[in-house]
Amino acid sequence: VRRIALRVAYDGTDFAGWQVQRDERTVQGVLEASLSEVCKERINLVASGRTDSGVHARGQVCHFDAADTGPPGEKFSRALNRVLPPDVRVMDSAAVGDAFHARYAARMREYRYYLLEGRCADPFERPYCYLRASLPPVELLNRFASPLVGTHDFTSFAAEKDENESKHRSIASCAFYPEGPYTVLRILGNSFLWKMVRTIVGTILELGGSGATPRDLENILHARDRKAAGATAPARGLFLYRVYYDEKPFT
Amino acid sequence: VRRIALRVAYDGTDFAGWQVQRDERTVQGVLEASLSEVCKERINLVASGRTDSGVHARGQVCHFDAADTGPPGEKFSRALNRVLPPDVRVMDSAAVGDAFHARYAARMREYRYYLLEGRCADPFERPYCYLRASLPPVELLNRFASPLVGTHDFTSFAAEKDENESKHRSIASCAFYPEGPYTVLRILGNSFLWKMVRTIVGTILELGGSGATPRDLENILHARDRKAAGATAPARGLFLYRVYYDEKPFT
Repeated sequence: VRRIALRVAYDGTDFAGWQVQRDERTVQGVLEASLSEVCKERINLVASGRTDSGVHARGQVCHFDAADTGPPGEKFSRALNRVLPPDVRVMDSAAVGDAFHARYAARMREYRYYLLEGRCADPFERPYCYLRASLPPVELLNRFASPLVGTHDFTSFAAEKDENESKHRSIASCAFYPEGPYTVLRILGNSFLWKMVRTIVGTILELGGSGATPRDLENILHARDRKAAGATAPARGLFLYRVYYDEKPFT
Repeated sequence: VRRIALRVAYDGTDFAGWQVQRDERTVQGVLEASLSEVCKERINLVASGRTDSGVHARGQVCHFDAADTGPPGEKFSRALNRVLPPDVRVMDSAAVGDAFHARYAARMREYRYYLLEGRCADPFERPYCYLRASLPPVELLNRFASPLVGTHDFTSFAAEKDENESKHRSIASCAFYPEGPYTVLRILGNSFLWKMVRTIVGTILELGGSGATPRDLENILHARDRKAAGATAPARGLFLYRVYYDEKPFT
């Protein structure tokens, strides 16, 4: 038996999220079916974390254990891409040590959220961003983003159904920047609560459009109450961009 | 009766091209159905030109005549986007004079063809480019592109079934340039023969990878025989980018 890590990109549009669900098309379900075909044995995948229905990934990382027969670690990407549907691609694959664990060894997760200002997004942009008639300037958005950096209780920004025992999370970086026609939030943290990034985006957009001050954002954080925060921004603007490990699984 | 012009963007992936065909999903078919719903009368669209199955557009232009009732010209885009599927978007709409004709008044068409070098494209790039394990450098590609500028008989680069009487076309500009991870061919001409851009791309890729000289490209052009040229590059890399008119239909 050996352990293989995969870096996976997927267009979340037509998936009911990462995690296997009966009667739903999920990324884990599609990948496990392709892996079982390639490995000729039943394979269970472990990911760095789940992504919700409609959320995209450029750098989801997952691992599995397989018999020593079958392709060498670095050949899995090509073998899998031959059988996978076009909205999931394995960008990298590698044999890793037994100590590697896609979820528990992950030190940091990076998400990006894409915003677009305008009345109409073209069909190439539309599935991958949140279109708003107007957007506050980047400098103003960043005045609301910076108080989130650090270790805080993020109860206000978690879905009410979030079942994590501790709601404390450490945000290493949280900033908006312009990228082509988009305004993008790049957020890095040790881990995230359910719907946390999308609630942060929705809340900052509301504050930025209403003449609020960064103090209002701090008050929302301190309220520890989901009702204090703003709407959850749509899934289609969110990308799981990268997962960081102390020992890089891919060269 | 008044004339309305539309600028349309579409993801060609799930369309059997522009032109209406029985039992096929086509861009013209989908747009005419939506227009007829909005205008409450049967509408016929005239485009700057057809695009083939799988070819994308950022700036297709078309026009139609409608009764004076119904929305003002500039409101058609929003009214249509409410009923259109997400892979077609009307980016602009405007009332134009009777003299405007999307096809006959078009002075120049601009296409772009996207090439990507690598073993694996991610699911966001893959439907919109031609992935090649290796690509010749841009400077070399351009040595083969430049002899095509000017007025020539392009029989060698047209599909054998092309039914245009004259195979002479005038190319104003034909050059490759780098754009992010892509190598892009930008080609401008008065009009194009069937599959002409894709055959130019396929031929230049073959020549660029084989140690041929620009003289070889000129020989292919002078042969006036489709068999002299290379393979037709795939539709998914091709975008109808813009159509130029003496009087701009949109502000």
